[in-house]
Amino acid sequence: MRNANHRLTLRSRPVGLAGPENFAEDFAPIRAPEPGEVLVESMLISIDPAMRVWISENPGYVPRIEIGEVMRAGGIGRVIESRADGLAVGDLVQARLGWQSHPTLPGSEVQKLDLSLGSADDWVGPLGMTGLTAYFGMRDVGRIRPGETVLVSGAGGGVGQLAGQIAGIEACRVVGIAGGPEKCAFLTNELGFDAAIDYKAASDLTADIARACPDGVDVFYDNVGGPTLDAAIANLRIGGRVVICGRISQTAASELYGIRNLGQLIGKRARMEGFVVFDYHDRYAEARTWISAHLREGRLRQRLHVIEGLERAAEGLSMLFRGENTGKLVVSVNSCRD
Amino acid sequence: MRNANHRLTLRSRPVGLAGPENFAEDFAPIRAPEPGEVLVESMLISIDPAMRVWISENPGYVPRIEIGEVMRAGGIGRVIESRADGLAVGDLVQARLGWQSHPTLPGSEVQKLDLSLGSADDWVGPLGMTGLTAYFGMRDVGRIRPGETVLVSGAGGGVGQLAGQIAGIEACRVVGIAGGPEKCAFLTNELGFDAAIDYKAASDLTADIARACPDGVDVFYDNVGGPTLDAAIANLRIGGRVVICGRISQTAASELYGIRNLGQLIGKRARMEGFVVFDYHDRYAEARTWISAHLREGRLRQRLHVIEGLERAAEGLSMLFRGENTGKLVVSVNSCRD
Repeated sequence: MRNANHRLTLRSRPVGLAGPENFAEDFAPIRAPEPGEVLVESMLISIDPAMRVWISENPGYVPRIEIGEVMRAGGIGRVIESRADGLAVGDLVQARLGWQSHPTLPGSEVQKLDLSLGSADDWVGPLGMTGLTAYFGMRDVGRIRPGETVLVSGAGGGVGQLAGQIAGIEACRVVGIAGGPEKCAFLTNELGFDAAIDYKAASDLTADIARACPDGVDVFYDNVGGPTLDAAIANLRIGGRVVICGRISQTAASELYGIRNLGQLIGKRARMEGFVVFDYHDRYAEARTWISAHLREGRLRQRLHVIEGLERAAEGLSMLFRGENTGKLVVSVNSCRD
Repeated sequence: MRNANHRLTLRSRPVGLAGPENFAEDFAPIRAPEPGEVLVESMLISIDPAMRVWISENPGYVPRIEIGEVMRAGGIGRVIESRADGLAVGDLVQARLGWQSHPTLPGSEVQKLDLSLGSADDWVGPLGMTGLTAYFGMRDVGRIRPGETVLVSGAGGGVGQLAGQIAGIEACRVVGIAGGPEKCAFLTNELGFDAAIDYKAASDLTADIARACPDGVDVFYDNVGGPTLDAAIANLRIGGRVVICGRISQTAASELYGIRNLGQLIGKRARMEGFVVFDYHDRYAEARTWISAHLREGRLRQRLHVIEGLERAAEGLSMLFRGENTGKLVVSVNSCRD
């Protein structure tokens, strides 16, 4: 189907977790670029927790995706036809490709990859939104300082694996929370985390965190929310900070978990803060320079969890919420390897 | 009983609200001051929500009060015997008097009131810990800016009445939450709040806040916690801040209310922060200069809710948690008016 644009559009708004039943697959004609546009062949498409928010009734901070619309997604592709200045056939680019094999996009919304900073794989992870989210969340929101103890939830995921390593590079002691012994071994053996807590094996997560962080937690980088957040607050030190990056445990929960330990923020003089990476747009270049330098030195690594085939993207979204990925989850679009 | 020290000591740790049954009344000999000490006659003793925390098993940020110990409390008194440099008979002072009529205290722990800044009444409220808590919480933690919308819970209480007025002086639009039509009228008619919400009359506090704050809430100064906090978070604007000063609704709750709206902090880029006024010790003088100037101009006012008689102090603590006070709750100790 090289001559069709393979697409997944939103069929229905999910109740609870999203899955294949919420998306419709089709093959639309490829649209030739108008002046100023490019035709891109999708290569790697990012699967992110925020996607579940975008397809909800009221996403809040971004426009929702309408029924029948191609699912929104960032990714990496290659220009195969260009009528836009500064973009040539063969260029690797990043853009909001969507869940489709052959998007036609305004050149102004397509960014040519600077391959001197890293590979296409790097650009879908550490140099992309995932890495920028880890960088600004940990450094600017968390304001980590050398010697501090940093706890990361969802540490085996795309943002978590990078957030923890960034804290380690800044001379923090880093403890990750992840599900299952394999993810925990990945954190400590491959990524250099100082310790890992398997929340699936925990009978008392609060006590497990206390054991792994005997002096308490200075910064908690939270991707998970729910009971994990309560357990982390209970272990915060005076002057502690909680970076609310995500709350994957609650995104599709039928009933939200109520956080009970907030009162501890008073005596602990603690701060809890949410953020959206787009607000740091003016500083992406600064972050990418830093990230690229540490990729080159081998001090910052990522694992990619690759799902083969665009048609499996919705299945990927389910996997993400079930915690079945280790590392950054992406879909490899077949078309680019035909 | 001019020759005895009338005292209330902790008899038992309360389950739920504290009340008279948790305290024992006695009359101990007055202790003559040693060199460096003063004997003080108590006049006005502050009743504060934090007291319930101090008598709990694990207060956290301050030492707990032991069974048999005189209840800790700040207040205003008069020196009636002095062996301490710089303190003379007749001086009005503030100190941790405790719930007792004739404390004997180290001179170093007694501060002579600067009556050029305000009266004894002012020193038990706006110039005391209550006012300092409102000042630093609103300005330094809340970082209010002119034109912002500021919501205050427990607005009819000691800290709340001052916190709201401070925001008003800084050209914010101020909305108070209080219990009952009289407290609400006090806020809008006497203190100049722009609007007041009677939470006892609210069927849907979230909707009531939305009506009173149609553009959303920039800063929520929270003395209450629980469902009030959830309703305020739902009304936060982008970049909103929550100052966690207290949570009187939860202090003695048998089961803590779980906060469900924390996920909104992400898209709203909102910050929630606890604080303890003692950390600002080096800046008390700065704050008192500001507060005194606004007291003098009549732009900052307080209502004192005075309970007559030290023996009623424990009853006062119950009143506080039932929200029966309007304004700053103090006990007037009879001895000083014999």
